[in-house]
Amino acid sequence: MNGRPAALPPLRWWGWGERETPVPPGLLDLLRDEAGVSGELSGRPPDLDAVTLPDHPLPAPLSRRLARIVGAANVRRGIEERVRHAAGRSYLDLLALRSGCLPGAPDAVVHPASAAEVALVLRACADAGCAVVPFGGGTSVVGGVAPARGPFAALITLDLERMNALVDVDTTSQTATLQAGMRGPRAETALRARGLTLGHFPQSFEYATVGGFAATRSAGQASTGYGRFDELTRGLRLIAPRTELNVTAFPASAAGPSLLELVLGSEGSFGVITDVTVRVHAAPRFRRYAGWSMPDFDSGTALLRDLAQRRVLPDVARLSDATETRASLAVAAGRAADMARRYLELRGQREPCLLVLGWEGDGATVGARERPAARLLRKHGAISLGAAPGRAWLHGRYDGPYLRDSLLDRGVLAETLETAAEWSHLHTVRAAVSDALQTSLAARGTPPLVGCHVSHVYGDGASLYFTVLAAQETGHEVAQWSAAKRAATGALQSAGGTLTHHHGVGVDHAAWLEGEVGPAGIGALRAVKTQLDPDGIMNPGKLLG
Amino acid sequence: MNGRPAALPPLRWWGWGERETPVPPGLLDLLRDEAGVSGELSGRPPDLDAVTLPDHPLPAPLSRRLARIVGAANVRRGIEERVRHAAGRSYLDLLALRSGCLPGAPDAVVHPASAAEVALVLRACADAGCAVVPFGGGTSVVGGVAPARGPFAALITLDLERMNALVDVDTTSQTATLQAGMRGPRAETALRARGLTLGHFPQSFEYATVGGFAATRSAGQASTGYGRFDELTRGLRLIAPRTELNVTAFPASAAGPSLLELVLGSEGSFGVITDVTVRVHAAPRFRRYAGWSMPDFDSGTALLRDLAQRRVLPDVARLSDATETRASLAVAAGRAADMARRYLELRGQREPCLLVLGWEGDGATVGARERPAARLLRKHGAISLGAAPGRAWLHGRYDGPYLRDSLLDRGVLAETLETAAEWSHLHTVRAAVSDALQTSLAARGTPPLVGCHVSHVYGDGASLYFTVLAAQETGHEVAQWSAAKRAATGALQSAGGTLTHHHGVGVDHAAWLEGEVGPAGIGALRAVKTQLDPDGIMNPGKLLG
Repeated sequence: MNGRPAALPPLRWWGWGERETPVPPGLLDLLRDEAGVSGELSGRPPDLDAVTLPDHPLPAPLSRRLARIVGAANVRRGIEERVRHAAGRSYLDLLALRSGCLPGAPDAVVHPASAAEVALVLRACADAGCAVVPFGGGTSVVGGVAPARGPFAALITLDLERMNALVDVDTTSQTATLQAGMRGPRAETALRARGLTLGHFPQSFEYATVGGFAATRSAGQASTGYGRFDELTRGLRLIAPRTELNVTAFPASAAGPSLLELVLGSEGSFGVITDVTVRVHAAPRFRRYAGWSMPDFDSGTALLRDLAQRRVLPDVARLSDATETRASLAVAAGRAADMARRYLELRGQREPCLLVLGWEGDGATVGARERPAARLLRKHGAISLGAAPGRAWLHGRYDGPYLRDSLLDRGVLAETLETAAEWSHLHTVRAAVSDALQTSLAARGTPPLVGCHVSHVYGDGASLYFTVLAAQETGHEVAQWSAAKRAATGALQSAGGTLTHHHGVGVDHAAWLEGEVGPAGIGALRAVKTQLDPDGIMNPGKLLG
Repeated sequence: MNGRPAALPPLRWWGWGERETPVPPGLLDLLRDEAGVSGELSGRPPDLDAVTLPDHPLPAPLSRRLARIVGAANVRRGIEERVRHAAGRSYLDLLALRSGCLPGAPDAVVHPASAAEVALVLRACADAGCAVVPFGGGTSVVGGVAPARGPFAALITLDLERMNALVDVDTTSQTATLQAGMRGPRAETALRARGLTLGHFPQSFEYATVGGFAATRSAGQASTGYGRFDELTRGLRLIAPRTELNVTAFPASAAGPSLLELVLGSEGSFGVITDVTVRVHAAPRFRRYAGWSMPDFDSGTALLRDLAQRRVLPDVARLSDATETRASLAVAAGRAADMARRYLELRGQREPCLLVLGWEGDGATVGARERPAARLLRKHGAISLGAAPGRAWLHGRYDGPYLRDSLLDRGVLAETLETAAEWSHLHTVRAAVSDALQTSLAARGTPPLVGCHVSHVYGDGASLYFTVLAAQETGHEVAQWSAAKRAATGALQSAGGTLTHHHGVGVDHAAWLEGEVGPAGIGALRAVKTQLDPDGIMNPGKLLG
């Protein structure tokens, strides 16, 4: 039942994809002017052969047992394999990878072909006291795939890439069951062949997997319209070390607490998600994406709130603050950007905020949904920029992480973080996070450029996504960002934001989770973990610490 | 911050509300013709004084401790108080109440005034080994408030009626925090005073409470538009016997598994929900409800599926099958009903299925949302019946349980049950349940009238709500319905329906829950229960059995 396999290569071992994305000169100028970045090339990562890894041989009896389960060729221990599974793709991960000196790596990477094999592998690891790290695309930016051993001497990473089939499509109910190892493009290609779409396009789309979407409560760029991945998920199969939890797909149920919602966001701490049943939608026959300029961030969020509370939201809604808009114009550079800037200034918008809205569906429906939005756009002072910014955004929607590699080549600290808050706290949260980042980094002599955008809109609030760019503090890169991240997380949590809207908890946020859910919340989650993973081998150090 | 208190009296001790609702003659004729019902008045319940209850005095030390916490006047042990908390409102509950001989009742009914008092009461009960049944409106139809003692000698019911304040409204974020004991009308009145609506109107609306809505994953008649109560809920406070779980309201979060979704549907098994933060909406300034006749049930569900999958659903969507439509016409009786019947027959609809759709909002939005629906109505063969059926449905939307009392007066078995299933299983599930009920009841010489409607519509499926009417099997009323219910539940579970879409699990479905969530699901829920309620005093026998 598979669609044509998508031909994307794996992630570059030391960064994102193979597509070179040079830093646009306009952005480099902006970073020189406002963040004191030199912009000189400061070196690329070493050769793979030169990377040093701690040596952790897998105990021989376990190794033999695993080989019997998945085949010897699928218990892999080469240096490249171990390096490729040694880290996710946070800024700190990239620093470690580029340093050529990794503090940890799995003893082996196991590639099962089926849920039955996963169950046997987990049982073997539980018996042997070996930690297991489930691995989808490896794109976590919160340490979700870090080879953290907890109390165990041995650790394997379980790569689900071979489990990448479309299991079933129900075109009547518009649901599909996908294996967890399916990457975004493969899932989308297989569904498009049946006239359907998953509608899930996070920035990591090209590499991230269906299992990872579910395990981390992923949100995509069109989730305002199609729903976050937790909203799309209807059923799933979780293989735990000594049991198996099957959540049957129903459109809705009142049969007790939601076990689905207990597995979503569990980040491999309870077991391995092997299959996911999701709502799918008819592939849109028509798309309209366009851009507007808002006089300021406040009028932009007022517009988004109005659209949401009147229930006339588009499928994509992104509002950049003035700094991010300035950076976008710097990236675009050239005559068109200059003209846009001058035109907006003439119309009284000196610090414009770029808004991109997108509608998808059939022509008639899109038209009907756009009309009430047009009225609200006028009301809140939007100036139309036509279709070009919408096209540009669609074209570059997956570019961020490629560009980040090039920024790191030039000694730039480049990282993102995100949250969500109710409308009444949104501005406080934004100011608190922005101030915390500015203060922390300026104190080290590396004043940052902090941009922010809203990308997910709800009736009661919205997400906030921050991009931080600064000169790296040579020799103290890790301490520099760790301090800033700590300050920002503390700030957003006290101001009323959630720890994370869609990046997840992983290692990086684990210490903060109790601040969000309280000791009773942690207690309940730990009880579930103990029940499903009594030996505690599943993804140590993530989620619950 | 309270709105004007709603003036509704409590439930009638032996049935529903005080409003007499005689059985319409047309319906009685139908029941005589098709279900062999005699329709003779077969007796009303006894006087309250004549009711017999088992005598279970509350242990004196516990009684004194509780009196110190809530005040002696709020530890109530009178016969009326105990009878009023001895049962919910299922058919079997009504049989027991009307028999005047109750198999169980709480030793005392405790009325706390605050979450702090609830915490102290639960601690006292945990220390003393006393079971606790949380009680909102007492409208459960699945035994959710049954005074089941489990292993405990003592049992109190905890009535939350005094905790009925609107705690907070955030008009910017459109959220509100309500105390759990607020009944539907009181919550709605308080919100309307601020231009807002909760939009939650289950048939039990007049009596049921906010805490009950959350604890049972309630769905209301307009939940297709406003969302089920689990979708409306953003945060809550759960007082457990030895801890407290606070779920903070965020528009969305990826900070681990959802603790909110773990408490929703927990039916008092983990603790007592004392406060709920919900999404609220602008009160609609405009409502349009109208009726259509569909040629058959299949074309009706095809229409609803089309509306849902094209994302142009109205806020209310109800489709009755031919039997239920026939019953509705029998209830309406008179010239108008006859004319409607004849008109539809002339247009080729011999077994018409009534469809009611309702839109709410401001005039412009309703218009824009109606237009695409109009096109699909034509496509699927709908014949417009104008606004009258919509008005009639709105007028009688809470009447069912009143009418049931009058049916019981006349020796009629009257009960409902419900499920939800994916579109591709919907017809199988409907046929299986209908057959099971027919077969079981006909075998006892009491062939039933089984009507069915869809009331909640999703992209991937819909709910099915069955109404069963039959002659009571005198002397074996309980066995008669128990057998039919068992047959129907087995049938819906094997055919692919969920155990319950919105009635909950309670006692009645507890034995079936493992069939839906599997042993690992039960294990995970039990682990949470043990963590939050280590003494096991919370609502024994419900949910997990």
